[in-house]
Parts: sequence; structure tokens; C-alpha cells
Amino acid sequence: MYPNVQAYDRGVMFNPDGRLFQVEYAKEAVRKGATSIGMVAKDGVVFVAHKNINDPLAVSNTIQKVFRIDSHICATYSGMVSDGLHIIDTARSNTQNHRMLFDEVKSIESLSKNISSYMMQATQYGGMRPYAVSLLIGGIDSQPRLFEIEPGASFLGYRADAIGSGKKVATEMLIKEYQDNMPIDKSIDLGVRIIKKVSESKLSEDNLDIGFVTIKDGFVLLSREQTTEYI
Amino acid sequence: MYPNVQAYDRGVMFNPDGRLFQVEYAKEAVRKGATSIGMVAKDGVVFVAHKNINDPLAVSNTIQKVFRIDSHICATYSGMVSDGLHIIDTARSNTQNHRMLFDEVKSIESLSKNISSYMMQATQYGGMRPYAVSLLIGGIDSQPRLFEIEPGASFLGYRADAIGSGKKVATEMLIKEYQDNMPIDKSIDLGVRIIKKVSESKLSEDNLDIGFVTIKDGFVLLSREQTTEYI
Amino acid sequence: MYPNVQAYDRGVMFNPDGRLFQVEYAKEAVRKGATSIGMVAKDGVVFVAHKNINDPLAVSNTIQKVFRIDSHICATYSGMVSDGLHIIDTARSNTQNHRMLFDEVKSIESLSKNISSYMMQATQYGGMRPYAVSLLIGGIDSQPRLFEIEPGASFLGYRADAIGSGKKVATEMLIKEYQDNMPIDKSIDLGVRIIKKVSESKLSEDNLDIGFVTIKDGFVLLSREQTTEYI
Amino acid sequence: MYPNVQAYDRGVMFNPDGRLFQVEYAKEAVRKGATSIGMVAKDGVVFVAHKNINDPLAVSNTIQKVFRIDSHICATYSGMVSDGLHIIDTARSNTQNHRMLFDEVKSIESLSKNISSYMMQATQYGGMRPYAVSLLIGGIDSQPRLFEIEPGASFLGYRADAIGSGKKVATEMLIKEYQDNMPIDKSIDLGVRIIKKVSESKLSEDNLDIGFVTIKDGFVLLSREQTTEYI
Amino acid sequence: MYPNVQAYDRGVMFNPDGRLFQVEYAKEAVRKGATSIGMVAKDGVVFVAHKNINDPLAVSNTIQKVFRIDSHICATYSGMVSDGLHIIDTARSNTQNHRMLFDEVKSIESLSKNISSYMMQATQYGGMRPYAVSLLIGGIDSQPRLFEIEPGASFLGYRADAIGSGKKVATEMLIKEYQDNMPIDKSIDLGVRIIKKVSESKLSEDNLDIGFVTIKDGFVLLSREQTTEYI
Amino acid sequence: MYPNVQAYDRGVMFNPDGRLFQVEYAKEAVRKGATSIGMVAKDGVVFVAHKNINDPLAVSNTIQKVFRIDSHICATYSGMVSDGLHIIDTARSNTQNHRMLFDEVKSIESLSKNISSYMMQATQYGGMRPYAVSLLIGGIDSQPRLFEIEPGASFLGYRADAIGSGKKVATEMLIKEYQDNMPIDKSIDLGVRIIKKVSESKLSEDNLDIGFVTIKDGFVLLSREQTTEYI
Amino acid sequence: MYPNVQAYDRGVMFNPDGRLFQVEYAKEAVRKGATSIGMVAKDGVVFVAHKNINDPLAVSNTIQKVFRIDSHICATYSGMVSDGLHIIDTARSNTQNHRMLFDEVKSIESLSKNISSYMMQATQYGGMRPYAVSLLIGGIDSQPRLFEIEPGASFLGYRADAIGSGKKVATEMLIKEYQDNMPIDKSIDLGVRIIKKVSESKLSEDNLDIGFVTIKDGFVLLSREQTTEYI
Repeated sequence: MYPNVQAYDRGVMFNPDGRLFQVEYAKEAVRKGATSIGMVAKDGVVFVAHKNINDPLAVSNTIQKVFRIDSHICATYSGMVSDGLHIIDTARSNTQNHRMLFDEVKSIESLSKNISSYMMQATQYGGMRPYAVSLLIGGIDSQPRLFEIEPGASFLGYRADAIGSGKKVATEMLIKEYQDNMPIDKSIDLGVRIIKKVSESKLSEDNLDIGFVTIKDGFVLLSREQTTEYI
Repeated sequence: MYPNVQAYDRGVMFNPDGRLFQVEYAKEAVRKGATSIGMVAKDGVVFVAHKNINDPLAVSNTIQKVFRIDSHICATYSGMVSDGLHIIDTARSNTQNHRMLFDEVKSIESLSKNISSYMMQATQYGGMRPYAVSLLIGGIDSQPRLFEIEPGASFLGYRADAIGSGKKVATEMLIKEYQDNMPIDKSIDLGVRIIKKVSESKLSEDNLDIGFVTIKDGFVLLSREQTTEYI
Repeated sequence: MYPNVQAYDRGVMFNPDGRLFQVEYAKEAVRKGATSIGMVAKDGVVFVAHKNINDPLAVSNTIQKVFRIDSHICATYSGMVSDGLHIIDTARSNTQNHRMLFDEVKSIESLSKNISSYMMQATQYGGMRPYAVSLLIGGIDSQPRLFEIEPGASFLGYRADAIGSGKKVATEMLIKEYQDNMPIDKSIDLGVRIIKKVSESKLSEDNLDIGFVTIKDGFVLLSREQTTEYI
Repeated sequence: MYPNVQAYDRGVMFNPDGRLFQVEYAKEAVRKGATSIGMVAKDGVVFVAHKNINDPLAVSNTIQKVFRIDSHICATYSGMVSDGLHIIDTARSNTQNHRMLFDEVKSIESLSKNISSYMMQATQYGGMRPYAVSLLIGGIDSQPRLFEIEPGASFLGYRADAIGSGKKVATEMLIKEYQDNMPIDKSIDLGVRIIKKVSESKLSEDNLDIGFVTIKDGFVLLSREQTTEYI
Repeated sequence: MYPNVQAYDRGVMFNPDGRLFQVEYAKEAVRKGATSIGMVAKDGVVFVAHKNINDPLAVSNTIQKVFRIDSHICATYSGMVSDGLHIIDTARSNTQNHRMLFDEVKSIESLSKNISSYMMQATQYGGMRPYAVSLLIGGIDSQPRLFEIEPGASFLGYRADAIGSGKKVATEMLIKEYQDNMPIDKSIDLGVRIIKKVSESKLSEDNLDIGFVTIKDGFVLLSREQTTEYI
Repeated sequence: MYPNVQAYDRGVMFNPDGRLFQVEYAKEAVRKGATSIGMVAKDGVVFVAHKNINDPLAVSNTIQKVFRIDSHICATYSGMVSDGLHIIDTARSNTQNHRMLFDEVKSIESLSKNISSYMMQATQYGGMRPYAVSLLIGGIDSQPRLFEIEPGASFLGYRADAIGSGKKVATEMLIKEYQDNMPIDKSIDLGVRIIKKVSESKLSEDNLDIGFVTIKDGFVLLSREQTTEYI
Repeated sequence: MYPNVQAYDRGVMFNPDGRLFQVEYAKEAVRKGATSIGMVAKDGVVFVAHKNINDPLAVSNTIQKVFRIDSHICATYSGMVSDGLHIIDTARSNTQNHRMLFDEVKSIESLSKNISSYMMQATQYGGMRPYAVSLLIGGIDSQPRLFEIEPGASFLGYRADAIGSGKKVATEMLIKEYQDNMPIDKSIDLGVRIIKKVSESKLSEDNLDIGFVTIKDGFVLLSREQTTEYI
């Protein structure tokens, strides 16, 4: 790193290498967030997300990590909680507006582009900071889709992907064990196993969010009982 | 901490670790505020809040720490007084607007999200500072609920929770002694005992605010006489 | 104080302790202002305020320290003259608007909250400084009330209170000698004695403002002759 | 003065003592301006103002120091010429608007408050500097009145007052020699004598502005011939 | 480079040499992007673009490097993904608006000028950074055209051109091997050979985008199968 | 000058002496401009202005230094060319608007005040610099008038005046040789002689602008031939 | 140059000498641009402009240096390409608007003033940089005219003029060899000879733009063939 790195990291401004430090620091915040995993499965998309809850008095289901965006779209995030909720809300408004304006459901790629474009503004203008969240947005339109958007606002489709503190290990496991067209429940099994590995705390129905989208059922968020069965 | 920490703490801007120092400093202000405690009880939610009053000439009931937000919602805060009152006002407007627009009462989770979203703006844009308050918002909609929102604007549900200078000790006592479905008066007893422990000044009806929400009675703020009975 | 205190005192921004230095410096300006005293009395509220007039050619009654806000509300301030007059004007507009909108007089607590909220804006946004005034607002609505608002915008009710350079000494005297339900004239006597003590210059009808609010008479500002009788 | 005084004098911002350095520096600019004197006289108000004209080619009557604001109000200033003219214009618009809106003449105290309030804005918001002028505003409404407004925007009524470079000496002379209810011409005499004393250049009808307001004549600006008679 | 280069590279501001460092740093970001190649061919324009995909789980066709702008115009970019997508969107809106306003297709030179003009704003105003992308815009209007726009917003027409990390080597190969009026497939062959040379990773249908515009077919994006045939 | 002078000269801000350095630096720019002279003459006002033209290929009459503002008003400036032309344009619009709004010609003093007020804004608000021009505005309304406005926006009437690099010497000559009620041609003679003295380059019809306003002829700009006769 | 020159070159702000460094740095950028030459000829105006094209694959006619502004006006620029194109566009809009508003063609001097005024804004307000271009604007209205506008926004008419990197040498040649009323083709010859001298690269129809305006033909841009004949 440059000896004078601090000279370039105080705003939306390039360093001599063409890097935006504020964006890289926001990514560092994401790297501290709880791990989330998304997988394209047979006829659907699966999300398994860890929740950082250390306080025994907290009500675990008030920390949500897997969100219904529309009947056919769900999302999860890693990073700053308030930023994540803000972007999730933005995604929900975006799909609702699309329904109202065009009387059709929004495609997942189009939603991901819109969110990417929204987050990109925060990397170009002074007077604000980048969003400190990575998102996985997935669901089914013409086919099951899964996209990741990161603080720098680029987005990319994945067959399976992980974000947050366990990204590195989780990705290695996904590369080894993920297969196309795994059934929904096998995918959930894999996701839970990965979270178990990357998480330091014991998994329970309290610190795990599991959701999926299928053509038949649309978005489904597992109940605590259903979650327990997978642990 | 970084040797050059000051380089990153002058605005809404990340340090290389992805931290927002202004938000952390605002939390430090909260850590200096008088302690407030919230508990989900049997059929209700209870708030016990300490008031820092050292001036014998002050009129204690003009410092309010437990606030009616709506017929079924109450709140307390710790931190900067003017920020706290501003957010309380914002919460009241929010619930009133919801009533007027939708002709229904606002859910407590939805209110907490709105307040979180409002406070999040102050952590992203330049030209303003974060709010230096933590809030407990509670009440009954479909069931008794309790949420905490902190200066970084994240929010989380709790069965029992403490904010302010006594947070650490109070939380330990809550973990040991709080039980689900305690009756309202037992909960108040526990709350008062905790405030006694974390407070350096002698408790009296002058420096204690006690309120609760039940289905039957809605929001109730104890009178000075009723407060005295619990001390 | 921090060795690098100057790093945090250039705007509306927290230091690592969660303090807003610009607000504290504004309080320092208030500490240099002439002393004002307010007391809840039997059936009324009394204000006694010192005026710093050293120029023998000044027309003493053009420095006003005790102001009629509405028929039943009066106020005094200590601190920067122009800020004080600005806030007094804001208070007057606020009560007049309330009358026009709701056809009722404003409660004193509600007015105090509004002024507190107005002054709070100046502690949160960049591009302006906090107001360098403390105010005492008092009067009678359902009962005699007295509130203090300080540069940090917090407000608190008092039975008797002092602001300005003599605050410390005056408060000690009030604690010792103030009693609830003192008649108006006894209260004025006490206030004048306190001002005499904290003021370095000789008291006269030129450098003293005395006013009170009673149910019977509303706001009354003593004439020079009436003032002389109390000295 | 503080060793690091420069740290606090770059904008509208308090130093640890609660002082606004930019306002104090603006006062320094006023202290360099030519002296103006105002006096309440019998049935009127008198202004005598010195004009700094060193250039023999300048047309002395194009430097105006005594201004008609309205039929019954006049004003003079010391300090930056362009700021002074701007505030004088503002005062004229203010009285004209009052006439148009309320069909009555503006009181002199009310005008002074409005100008004070206008100048106060320049001491609170960033992105502008305080006005570098002191003003004397005087005239007759219910009685003869005279007010001074300074760069910090406070205002105060006087029986007799001086502003500008000769303020200290002039004030001492006024204290010794000014008397209430002096006739207009005696007041002018006194004013001219004071200006003679504080001015380094020889007085003539070229560098002296004399004006007064009486009930009978309204505002009168002396002609060059009339001015000469007083020198 | 200047010893004090950092003094001039923090915003849209010239150094003593008349250089805009932020623009030069943005170009550095482009130099790190995957290589794209454009060629004017016989009766058409050809684009071959490399995609940086190292993640075996990524869905390669969700990284798009060759974009349809209008029926007769296509574009590719190198540099920051989010900036690239933003400019591509801007280009699409621009051509659609032109169609709607004038009922005719936009010329490629006119579109390039508009995009150049749009990107130029980001090099002149404070509070934002330059766009970190170079673009190749090509297609057929009266004849096949190809333009490059760089972060400094200048644009220039080319017969064949390369942008991104392999620009230097690719340009040397183009100079040696490119010929006017090569058939579309020969042009693609050349482009693929160049990308093979400048790319460190093995080429496949996953990391290569190939598109062309001809009068007969308008814009065509090769399918994975068609792409494979060229590798 | 202060050792830390640079601390106060970066914007519209006072130094401890009450000086605005940016205004003083703008005056320095004026001191580098070519000299212009204005004189009130018998029944008219005369302007003689030098033009800095060193390039033998320049078309001298495209540098204008003496401008018609209205039928009865003319002006000249010294300082930054673009600022000068901007203010000249502003003056022209100002007089035209006055004609349209009030159906009368603008007085020269009133125009000078308006321009002064316009230039004063640039000395008070941040985000812009003062205008680097001094102006002479003259003409005939009720009588011949001549005003100077400088970068600090103060204005003053003169019988005869000089601005620009030769101001000091020119003023000395004017004091010695200027007389009231000189005929137009004698005044021009004097002006030309002064310019000859203060100018390093040889005077010719190429680098001299001569204009005057009389009641009979309004504004007249001398032709090259007429100018030659005076050299 | 000042030891602390950097203190004054970060924005639109004067140094103690009254210089605007950002404007001077922008001029430095112009000094790096390819040379352009303009000449008033017999019955017309001639422009000869060099184009910096080193890339053998570039399409030379897409770099334009001589532009039609209106039927009777043409222009060339040296400096930053994107700034140049922006100002050229502004000039075109300006003349078109004039035609539409007044139903007459714009005079060349008036256009030059408007462009100068537009560029002047960028030298006065913060938050933007000066334009890094010099322009030659020429054509025929009542007679052949030629104007230069530089980054500081001053403008001046010329009989013959050069801008860009070869300005010094080119001007010397023009002074020696330019004559009034040279026929168009002789003027072009001279211009081409000058460009040959100041250019390091070999001249060809690829890196030379030649255009002229005559009464008979209006604006004419030479074809590649016609250009070749002059080399």
C-alpha cells in the first residue's frame, strides 16, 4: 500500500492507481458481516444466511437476513445493518413500481441492475459514502437466477455464491460441493453445512435464516421448526 | 486503534477497517446517558427509566424518559436530550400519519424500521452528524414487542434490554433474572432493582419513570405515588 | 481535555468522547452573559434579570431582558444579544401561530419543546453554529411553569432557576432561600437580593428588569418606579 | 489571546471561550472607519459624521455618511463602505415595505430590530462573512430615539453615541458635555467639536455630514453653506 | 512527476502543467480493465471483448462486455463495471430519445459526441469524480463507424482500436494485421487471436463476448456455440 | 504584513485587522491594468484610456476601453479583461431595464450604486472571488458626473480620476493640471498627455481610446483619425 | 514564483499578486495543444489547424479542428479536446438561438463576447475549473473578422493569430510574412508553411484541417484532396 494512502481515501476520489479507497473500506465492512449463501437449485433458488446474535435476550426472528422482495424474488445481505435494510427497501419499492407502471413482474437481472445503478451513485458524488453492503438477489423469472452486488456497485450472476465474513471458505466449499440442479433440500443441506463451518457460534434456529423461491411456491421462508430440521 | 485515527473521524467516511468513527463517537455519548430498561412481560411491555436529576430545584416530571408514542406504543431513550426528543417527536408523527393514511394503527416493528431508516440518513450524508441516541420502542400489536435502535441505525428485537450508562451491568442482571411471561408488576420490580444497582444516586419518584403497555389498558405511565410503591 | 481537542471542535461533529465542542463553546458564551433568575411563585412566575450597562449614555430600557411572549408567557435569556432576540422573536411567532391555527393559547411546555427543537437543528447541521443563549421561559397555563433551554437544546422544568454568569452562586442561594408558594413580592425580593450578590455593579432601576405572570394580571413588567422600590 | 487563535477564526464558529472571531475582526474594520456621532436633542435627533476624503479631486458630496431612511428616520454608519451602503438600502426597503403593508410609518426601534436580525444571519451561517459596519439609526416616532447596531448584530438605545475610529475619545467627550434636551443647534455644535477633536484632518464642509430629524421638519440634511457655519 | 503531485490530485483542478490528475488516475483504472477490441470490417463493425471471470461459480453470460445500444449501434467498455454500465445505459436512453424526438436513428458520431459531452461534465465540476471507463462505440449509419471515448472525455474515430489492460500489445497487433474491408469472420478471427495473446487466462465461450453490426443483420451477439467456433 | 497572512487570504473572510485579503489581491490585479482617466469637463465628461497592445497583428479597435453604457453614460475599466466586460454588460442591462421599467433614463449615481451593490456580493459570499476591476462611470444627467468603483465595491464621485497601473502618477498630474470647467478638447489634451507620461509604449491611435459625453452630442467615441489629432 | 505558490492555486482565488493560478495552469494545457492558425484574408478568413494523430489506425477526419459554427462563422481551438468540443457546441447553440430569436445572423464579435462571458463564469465560481482551451473564432459579417479567446476569458481581434504549442514560432512567422488582403490561397499557403515549421510530425491530409469563409461561398472545409494540394 502507498505510504501516503491517506491522501486519497477521504472521499469519492481516485488514488494514482485508479482505486477508490472509500469503496474498498466499505468492502472491509462487508467482510465483517455474517455470512450469507445463495444457490441456484433445481427449479428454484436457495438462500441460507447466518445471523450474528450473541445476546441471549435478543429476539432472533427480528434480525432478518433473508427477505421477500416480490412474490418471485428474494434477497440477503452482509454488512452494515442499516445500509442493508435501506437497500432491501429500495429493492421492494423498485419491484412494486415496476408492477404498477408496466403491470408485469420485474426480471431479476433488471432489478439487480437498478440496485447496482442506485449504489453506484454513492461511489461517484461527494457528500455521501458508499453503501457498506453486499447483496445476493435471486429468484425465478424465465429461469432461476442469482446475482451479487458489492459496495463498488458492480453486479454479477452466479450459480452459487457467498458474501460476508465466511466468503473465502464458503466459496471453496461451494466450488467443491455445489452441483447444478441439486434439489432444494439438498441445496439447503449444503448451505447449512457451509454456515456451520464458517461460523464460530453453534448454529440453531435462532441464528439461521433459510428461504427459497420455486415456481410452484414462490418465495418461502422456513419456520423455526423447519429450520431446526436442517441443522 | 490506528495511529492516524483522526484522519477518518471527521465526517461520514469509512476508515480502512470499514468503521464509521462519527457513529462510534455518537454511541459513546449514549454510553453517558441515564439507563433505561425495557421488558416484554405477560400481556404487555414494561419500561423503567432512570433520570439524571441533580438539581434540587428541577421539576422532575419535566424530564420525561418514558413516552407515549401511540395508544399502544411507548418508547424511552438514552443519550443527548435534544436528539432524543427529536426522534420521539418523529416517532409520534410517524404513527399519526399512518393512522391518517391507512386508518389503522402502526405495527411496532414497522415503526422501528421507519425510525431506523430516518436515523440511517444521518450516517450517510455529509453536512450533518449521526443522532446520539439509542431508543427502546415497545408495545403491543399482534403480540408484545420490544426493539432497540442505536446511533448506527441498526435495530433489533429483544425480550428484555437496557440502554445507557448502565447497559453492561443491567444486561447481566436481565440475563440472570428476566423470565418470559413475568407479570407486569414483577417486571417493574426487576427493572427498579436493576436501576437501583446501576445508579449512583438514591432512587426516588423524582428520578424514575415507569410505564407499561397492556392490551387492557394501553399505555400507562405510573403516577408519582405508584412509582414510590415500587422503590 | 484531549491533546488534539482542536481536531473536533470545528463544526457539528463528535469527539471520541461523544461531545460536541461547538455546543460547549456556545455554553461558554452564555456563561459570560448577565444573570437572569426565574421562580415559580404563589399563583405566578417571577423573573428578575440583570442588564450589563456600563455606558452612562445608553438608554437602559432599550436593553430588554424580560420579554412578554404572550399574554400568559414571559421569557428571559443570557448570552449573545442577537441570538437571544432572534429566539425571543421565534417564540413570539410560535405562540401567535398557535393562537391562529388552533384558537387557543399555547402551553408553556409545548412552547419550550418547540424552541428546543428549533435550537437543536443548529447543533446537527453543518454550515451553521449553535445558538449561544440559554433561555428561561415561564408563565401560567394549567399551573405556573418555568423551563430552561440551553445551547445544546435540552430543556428542563424548574421551580426556580438561574442562567448566565452568576448561575452558580445564584443557584446556591435559590436552593437555600427559595420556597414553594412564596408570594410574588417575596419572590421578587429574593431575586433582587441574588442579583445584587452576583453582580459587580451597583443595582438600579437602569440595570434590572423585573417581570411576572399571574392569573389575575397576566404578564406584568415593572415600571422604573416599581423596580426602584425593590432595590 | 490563545496561541492557536487562528484555529477558530476562519468562519462562523466559536472558540473555546465562546467568542466569534470573524465578528470581532469585522468590528476591527469598523474601528478603522471615520467617526459618526448621534445625539438625542430637544425635539429631535442629530447626526454629525466625518468623511475620510484625502483626494482633492473627489467630489465630497458623493460620499454620504448621513442618510434619510424615511421622512422621520435617518442613519449613519462607520466601517466598510459597500457594506454600509448595502445595509442603508436594506433599511430603506424595510421602512417602505412597512408603509405599504400596514399604511403606517415604522417605529425606529422596530427598524433597528429588523436590521439587527438581518445582520445576525451573517454571523450564524457559513459561506458568508459578518457585515463590517456599525450603524446609528435615529429619528422621531412617539419620541426622539437613537440606536446603535454593531457587526455582532446586537443593538442598544442611546441618548448620545459615537461609532468608528474616534469612538473612545468621542464617547468621553459626550459623557462630559452631552446634556438631555439640548437644542438642535447646540447639539450640532457639540458634535462638530467632537469630530474636530478626533479627526486628524482639518474639518470643512467637504468632510462633514450634518443631519437632524425634528417633528416640525422631518429629516433635514444641512447644505454646504449651513455646514460651514457650524465649523 | 512533481514532488508535490498530491497537492493537485484531489479534485477537478489543474496542476502547474495543466494536467487533471483525477482524470489520469481514472485512466489508470481503465488500464486495469479487461481488453476490448473494435474493428471496422467489410460492411460492418466487429467487437471482441474479454471478460475477467475467475470464479468458476459465476454465470459468465451475466457479465456483458458487448452491448446492443440500438438496432444499428453496439458498444463495449473497459474499466469500472458500475461506471461502464451507467454509461451504456446513458447511451441507450440517448438513442431512444433521439428516435422519439426526431423519428430517425441517431448517427454514431453524434451519439459519441453526446457521451463525450456527458463524461466531460464529470471532469469539470467539483463534488464528483471522472468516469473510470473507456468506451468503444460502433455501428453503421451511412457507413461503418468506430469511436473511442476515454475518461478525459475526448473521442476519436478508429478503423480498429483496443482499450483496457491489453491496449498496448493489442494495438501493435492491429497495426500489423488489421486490413480495411476484412470480412466479418476474418475480423472476428483477428480479434480473438489478439485477446488470446493479451489474456493470461485460457479463452473459452465463458470469458469472451463477440458481437458485430452489419447492414443486413443489424446488431448480432454471438451465441456460446458460435463463440466457441472462433476460439 | 502578518507572518501568517496566508491564513486569512483564502476566501471572503476577515483577518484580525478587519481586512479582506482577497479584495486587496483583486486590487493588485487592477494595479496591473492599463491606465484609464476620467474628467468632468465643461458641459461634459471625458474619458481617455490606454490599451495594452503589444501584438502587431492584433486589431486594436477590438480592445475597447471606453464604452457607451447608455445615450448619456459611458464607462471605462482597468483590470481583468473578462471581469471588466462582464461588469460593463451588467451596467448596460441595468440602464436598459431602468428605461423599460420607469420610462426614464437612469441617473449616473444610481447606476454606480447598483454596480457597487452587484460587486459587493462577490466580496461577501463564499464560493466566488471578488471582481478584479476598477471602473470609471460618467456622463450627464442633471449635471456632469464621474464615479469610481473599486474591487471592494465602494464608490466615490470625482471631478477627475485615474485607475490602473498609472494611477499614482496620473493622479498627481491631475491634481496639478486639472481645472474645473475645462473645455472638452483641453480635457482630452490633458488626458492624452497623462497617458503618454504613464505609458511605456509609444502612444498611437491603436492604443488609445477617447470618448466623451456632452449634453449636445450624448456619448461620442473618437474615430482613429480624431484620436490621432490629439496625440 | 512565490515560495508558497501552492497556497493560492487550488481554486478560483487570487494570489497576493492578483493572479488566478488555475487560469494560468489551464493556459499551460493550451500550450500543449496542437497549433491552429487564423488569418484575415482578402474577402475572407482562413483557418489552418494541425491535428495530433500518432495512431495509424485512427480515422483522421474524426478529429476535427476547424468547425463550421454558422453559415458565415468558423472556429478552431487548441487545448483539451473535450473542453474544446463543449465550447464549439456552445458557440453553435448561441448562433442558432440568435437566428431564432432575432431572425438575423449573429455578428462574430458578439458571438466572441458571449463565449468569453460563458468562459468567464468558470474563472469566478468555486466548484468548477476554468476551460482549458483557446479559441479562434472568425468569419464575415460586415467585414472579415478574427478573434481569439483564452482560458482567462479575455478576447481580442487579430488580423492573423496562432494558438497552441507552436504559438510563439507561428506568431513570429506571421509577423514577418502575413500581409493584409492576401488572397485566400496565398493565406492557406502561409498557414501550411507555418504548421510545417512548428510541427514535429510530417504533414499530410490526415493531420491538417483547412477551412475558410468567404462572402461568396460561406464556410468551406477543404476536402482531403484539396488539402493535399497545399502540402
